[in-house]
Amino acid sequence: LSLAFITSPLDRAAEIRNSSNRLNELAAVGASCCVAVLGDQVQTEAGQVFIQRGAIAAGSVFLGLDENKTAWFARPAVETSELTGLRDLMLAGDADAGLLSILAQARSMVGWHATHGFCAKCGAATDMADAGYRRHCAGCGADHFPRTDPVVIMAVVEGDAMLLGRQAAWKPGMYSALAGFMEPGETIEQAVAREVREEAGVVVHDACYVACQPWPFPSSLMIGMVAKAASRDLKIDHSEIEDARWFSKTEIRQMLERTHPDNLYAAHPYAIAHRIISAALEEIESAG
Amino acid sequence: LSLAFITSPLDRAAEIRNSSNRLNELAAVGASCCVAVLGDQVQTEAGQVFIQRGAIAAGSVFLGLDENKTAWFARPAVETSELTGLRDLMLAGDADAGLLSILAQARSMVGWHATHGFCAKCGAATDMADAGYRRHCAGCGADHFPRTDPVVIMAVVEGDAMLLGRQAAWKPGMYSALAGFMEPGETIEQAVAREVREEAGVVVHDACYVACQPWPFPSSLMIGMVAKAASRDLKIDHSEIEDARWFSKTEIRQMLERTHPDNLYAAHPYAIAHRIISAALEEIESAG
Repeated sequence: LSLAFITSPLDRAAEIRNSSNRLNELAAVGASCCVAVLGDQVQTEAGQVFIQRGAIAAGSVFLGLDENKTAWFARPAVETSELTGLRDLMLAGDADAGLLSILAQARSMVGWHATHGFCAKCGAATDMADAGYRRHCAGCGADHFPRTDPVVIMAVVEGDAMLLGRQAAWKPGMYSALAGFMEPGETIEQAVAREVREEAGVVVHDACYVACQPWPFPSSLMIGMVAKAASRDLKIDHSEIEDARWFSKTEIRQMLERTHPDNLYAAHPYAIAHRIISAALEEIESAG
Repeated sequence: LSLAFITSPLDRAAEIRNSSNRLNELAAVGASCCVAVLGDQVQTEAGQVFIQRGAIAAGSVFLGLDENKTAWFARPAVETSELTGLRDLMLAGDADAGLLSILAQARSMVGWHATHGFCAKCGAATDMADAGYRRHCAGCGADHFPRTDPVVIMAVVEGDAMLLGRQAAWKPGMYSALAGFMEPGETIEQAVAREVREEAGVVVHDACYVACQPWPFPSSLMIGMVAKAASRDLKIDHSEIEDARWFSKTEIRQMLERTHPDNLYAAHPYAIAHRIISAALEEIESAG
């Protein structure tokens, strides 16, 4: 298992999006592919991702061209079809990493249309344009574009200890990096400091970028950071998180490897939390 | 002049947002401050930012508390008031950097409400909640949150040369880093590669994060990167940019310092483009 959703084989070929002729041609090609999603669920057939070939329905979202120049599209699934959660497909570990990345794009795009059929500016119904990358309001003329919501997620280090937290809804024993949505008018580094202070009462400095991951539930961009804390004093906001705790480097290693004596464990390797906790642990170990 | 909009003195104090009692108290305090914005414009008085004290109107957006625990709010300006462009205030260089950062938050937040009065899911009118950080639809129950649109902006380096481009709308002679909005389902690094390929036909690798900047026109997060190119071959998409060109390190230095013999120049120091071009130039100079 490794970081999910970051290995799309598709060239998004944005130059095609405006050409209905070209899109109609591609939709008719027998080899063209279409996946179907409904909320966080993907249409499957006997548990495998269902890929419709050729004769793609008009109004499908154009995702891009793969290495063989095969076109990929996405459309809403019908409720009566066989559906499997995208998270379950990811966890099962047998879906192709490239296909999972395509499904991430599909889920975010189809979900955006499903929840943005009306103009936020005037309330009128809007129409899909640019092969799915725009919605236009004929009423007031406004154009609307898909959302990507940046989220900061951070491992916090003080000396040889690391701060992780958990939400009440998580399975018992799981701890992960603190995280939160960015707000208008702040930098990534400011958002890291704000979230850690809000949730755990800890003041951080020197936040460094590690890696990022699209997280299609529904349409986040997880920005993975490692930050340093000035002290280990905690003041947990229990309305936001159930717990936050400083762990020793030995415990963190055990939690990543799932050998902790109390059955505590860290986020799965498919999630960026695992990557940044690993990066922060390496930093601690190389420093000490 | 240095990077604008990144030095807000405000603690956003999100825990206050849900308390109408506390908000009403703060709005009545004589020292509390409110700025007023309309689109990209800020209400001014004889050219100075107008700050209303005390008796803040209900429905104003709560921005946060400054170092003196003074509360700051934002509200829409009326069209008949004296208005000055936020860009002009920034360029004039005499506005306080902290105040400019407060205005960035104000502009994004007030602008979001001005353009999101209706539910994108069902078309009904929505109501402001959480002191401005949410809009609720009584019709379908949907909650909507302010947008922050991540944008990648990147200096591209090959050997001792740097790739910059310009848009037709810019003043003659100005070149800057290529940039573009991120799309759902991609990483920052993938977005960098996609945009550079789309606009200039250049393949890049090893994109590294340098810094970021909120850019409140209306609500972007500029993610500043430096990337390496495999070759200097260009294939410019003139529907996206007017020109893109490889510049020598000597020219880049001249463009940053505004001493280029052809009067070419790089983005202003208030913009993150200047920071990443400078960072890429340092990288070139330290390598060679």
